[in-house]
Amino acid sequence: MRARRAHIDTYQQAVVYMRSDCDVCRAEGFEAQAQVEVINGQHRVLAILHRVDSDWLHHDEIALSDAAWKVLKVHEGVPLRVRHPQMLESLRHLRAKVYGARLDYGAFHALMQDIAAQRLTDLHLAAFVTACAGGRLDMDETIALTRAMIDVGERLQWPTAPVMDKHCVGGLPGNRTTLLVVPIVAACGVLMPKTSSRAITSPAGTADTMETLAPVTLDVTAMRRVVEREGACIVWGGAVQLSPADDVLIRVERPLDLDSDAQLVASVLSKKAAVGSQKVLVDVPVGPTAKVRSAEAAQSLAHALVTVGAAIGLEVEPLLTDGSQPVGRGIGPALEAMDVLAVLERRHDAPQDLRERALLLAGAVLEMAGKAAPGEGFLLAQRTLDEGRALAKFVSLCDAQGGMRVPPVAPYFAPVTAARPGVVTQIDNRRIARAAKLAGAPRDPAAGATLHVRLGDPVERGQPLFTLHADTPGELRYALDYVHQQPSIVAVKEHT
Amino acid sequence: MRARRAHIDTYQQAVVYMRSDCDVCRAEGFEAQAQVEVINGQHRVLAILHRVDSDWLHHDEIALSDAAWKVLKVHEGVPLRVRHPQMLESLRHLRAKVYGARLDYGAFHALMQDIAAQRLTDLHLAAFVTACAGGRLDMDETIALTRAMIDVGERLQWPTAPVMDKHCVGGLPGNRTTLLVVPIVAACGVLMPKTSSRAITSPAGTADTMETLAPVTLDVTAMRRVVEREGACIVWGGAVQLSPADDVLIRVERPLDLDSDAQLVASVLSKKAAVGSQKVLVDVPVGPTAKVRSAEAAQSLAHALVTVGAAIGLEVEPLLTDGSQPVGRGIGPALEAMDVLAVLERRHDAPQDLRERALLLAGAVLEMAGKAAPGEGFLLAQRTLDEGRALAKFVSLCDAQGGMRVPPVAPYFAPVTAARPGVVTQIDNRRIARAAKLAGAPRDPAAGATLHVRLGDPVERGQPLFTLHADTPGELRYALDYVHQQPSIVAVKEHT
Repeated sequence: MRARRAHIDTYQQAVVYMRSDCDVCRAEGFEAQAQVEVINGQHRVLAILHRVDSDWLHHDEIALSDAAWKVLKVHEGVPLRVRHPQMLESLRHLRAKVYGARLDYGAFHALMQDIAAQRLTDLHLAAFVTACAGGRLDMDETIALTRAMIDVGERLQWPTAPVMDKHCVGGLPGNRTTLLVVPIVAACGVLMPKTSSRAITSPAGTADTMETLAPVTLDVTAMRRVVEREGACIVWGGAVQLSPADDVLIRVERPLDLDSDAQLVASVLSKKAAVGSQKVLVDVPVGPTAKVRSAEAAQSLAHALVTVGAAIGLEVEPLLTDGSQPVGRGIGPALEAMDVLAVLERRHDAPQDLRERALLLAGAVLEMAGKAAPGEGFLLAQRTLDEGRALAKFVSLCDAQGGMRVPPVAPYFAPVTAARPGVVTQIDNRRIARAAKLAGAPRDPAAGATLHVRLGDPVERGQPLFTLHADTPGELRYALDYVHQQPSIVAVKEHT
Repeated sequence: MRARRAHIDTYQQAVVYMRSDCDVCRAEGFEAQAQVEVINGQHRVLAILHRVDSDWLHHDEIALSDAAWKVLKVHEGVPLRVRHPQMLESLRHLRAKVYGARLDYGAFHALMQDIAAQRLTDLHLAAFVTACAGGRLDMDETIALTRAMIDVGERLQWPTAPVMDKHCVGGLPGNRTTLLVVPIVAACGVLMPKTSSRAITSPAGTADTMETLAPVTLDVTAMRRVVEREGACIVWGGAVQLSPADDVLIRVERPLDLDSDAQLVASVLSKKAAVGSQKVLVDVPVGPTAKVRSAEAAQSLAHALVTVGAAIGLEVEPLLTDGSQPVGRGIGPALEAMDVLAVLERRHDAPQDLRERALLLAGAVLEMAGKAAPGEGFLLAQRTLDEGRALAKFVSLCDAQGGMRVPPVAPYFAPVTAARPGVVTQIDNRRIARAAKLAGAPRDPAAGATLHVRLGDPVERGQPLFTLHADTPGELRYALDYVHQQPSIVAVKEHT
């Protein structure tokens, strides 16, 4: 079969198109939606077959979606082989897990290898992610999964110690402290090679926000160069491909809006180990509408992080923080970047809550690294920020990553106002995040929401509570429709 | 956007194709793999968007896959609306279930409504099926799910009583007793309007096998006509659409090779209730490589069937049977149909195990119906078969359904022989079923396997153990490759 580019974008799913009456479909008995293996010399891909019954495709042609085209590294007209895929042994393990069995390291390793090599369909990925959610992995399994994720990827090493890292388990819109902690810590001379993810279920990941200020898609060589020069970096983990299985799993976690404890622990710690970190501070925001909703849930997650960390040689320190409302004002990549810049530039209108959280976390990292005595980290962090050294470090970091830039501004926006006077009694993290996503974040980096009030603030009738920002009128309308069906995103209680 | 048929077969998944630079994609911010709602007057479908970057599609055109084309009932050039889909409330319930929460009737009903209306993506369906597998639905939830499945579909009523039904939980290749039980019972004057499924994870479902002998794709009106004339029918449940949610769930259960207890109970009993059955005999084959592997598992499944049945007004009688090896010789639609015909025609070479099982089950149904005294059902069934009345009923049943036909024969076949002399000590139900599937069953009705030996049979070296049948050389090779990697599908132990 001769290769032909279909010029069809199917995101990361590899799809191939063949005539249903072509010789190969007939000889092999391929049906629509069948999984087929397509081979171009050394390169192979498992793809879904869509069968064509019209003349845009010839009988001896196989058309490839953009994702398949890229993986196969093919040119127009190159001959390709198509065959039934081998039976995957790892699917037996997946099936066992779905039915409630415990898996060992060997089983997880087989699964992670096949997942990293894109040999599982999206349906199987969805089943795996679901089968591991809701507390269905015990501690040994979580450790085995984490090890397996590390072992199917690369692992970096650094010449100096300690190598510090931080992570936030998420669920709190606007909590973009990494972009402040890294320059503060690095300005104090502590090594912090940070890889961050793009959003999985939130309106912005750290990588998405950083990307509005500087390039983040660096390969391992480029990342090393930045860290050697600056002692730190803030790059996208997906580009350095240190955790290839996790990068594939995210593809289904995002549309399913799923991100379970065990998966979270394995995902986070495998990435930290792969990047060569030794000590990790983990921010666990706790609040009624945050990802972690109770002190018990936080303790349990913290325990898993520390235990699994110890098993793979990582010192993990969990820090439980207030997760009762979003941090800062912006929600969405560019809007959050503006908040970060305001703090770094020590502007008088900078969001104080974001500043305080960043100093707290940076202080804790400095203490873990032995750079500050216990109890003195916060002050060291504060001094570093207030003397402008964090800003200077951030600017040269952006420069080293390819050049600092100005975050984009969305052309369409609409305020959402208070229906009555009163006091703000609740801000729903999840629903404001969803509204920001419906407005286009993080796909459109300028889209999202800006909060104008915080818990306890008095408001007048008609006063703006938050503003939605979008790149297109369609998305703005879509987000507004949602907001109007959910009147209590920002709850205002009347004075009595 | 003007509709255009893409002539692309994506099985049941609705896919639409739009230019990435078209006005709608730009105004609405649609990305590849986004879910979009496409509207043609009263008809709407949720589809996955694949974005096109070439000139086969115009800027104002939207191309539709065969599945989308069919649901929207559209013509070339008809204007279509495309918009962001509404947020589905039922996804909240799905998420809760994934995280281990118990769901009530209201939650299951919302999910079943959205599933029946094809509003969930395949990823969400996969998550739902997985979240309900492995004992994660308790009895109350299974009852609620069953009720919800019934309530989103139609429910038939019949003028006479009792209305009998039978079901086999499956996992035993060749166990095609329905095609014998229905004509025996109907020949005794007992009402038995039977709907059957196509294969989910097996090489043949009863509907697949029946279809090689007579049409099974009848709508409710046609089915009623057959039952009024013959007192019975054997039709495909998917065509009468009595359980629309279940019909959609099968779409992901099949590629995932998943079919859990709770789902099985809900699926089976909801269909029985929908078709108007009052008393149901359930065949539960138990064996080391059957679907149900131990007496305990069988008891637990039987208990669930009886309990859920009682809750929805069905009298269910479970019958545990021997599941240690396949039944009859054929595995695959046409090959199993040949076995059924041999029994009905009382040929001396008819498989006696299939005959015995069918008589046992038919006898039990006749006793449940009050047509035979306790202990006398078997003899009545035997007499009905041996006097040729079951054959006559089957022929007129096929005739009523549209005309009896001759099962097809596959052009390619290859025997698999014994590597050594000895005695057959094990036949692996799952692996022989998989080999039959790889050979093309049930997609190709003539494909599959025929077993030449049974447990305890002595064999010579080189003696054929089973034969694989396929429509194409590619599939025959594919099945043989698998068989040669799995030498113990039929285990032969040497005499010592």
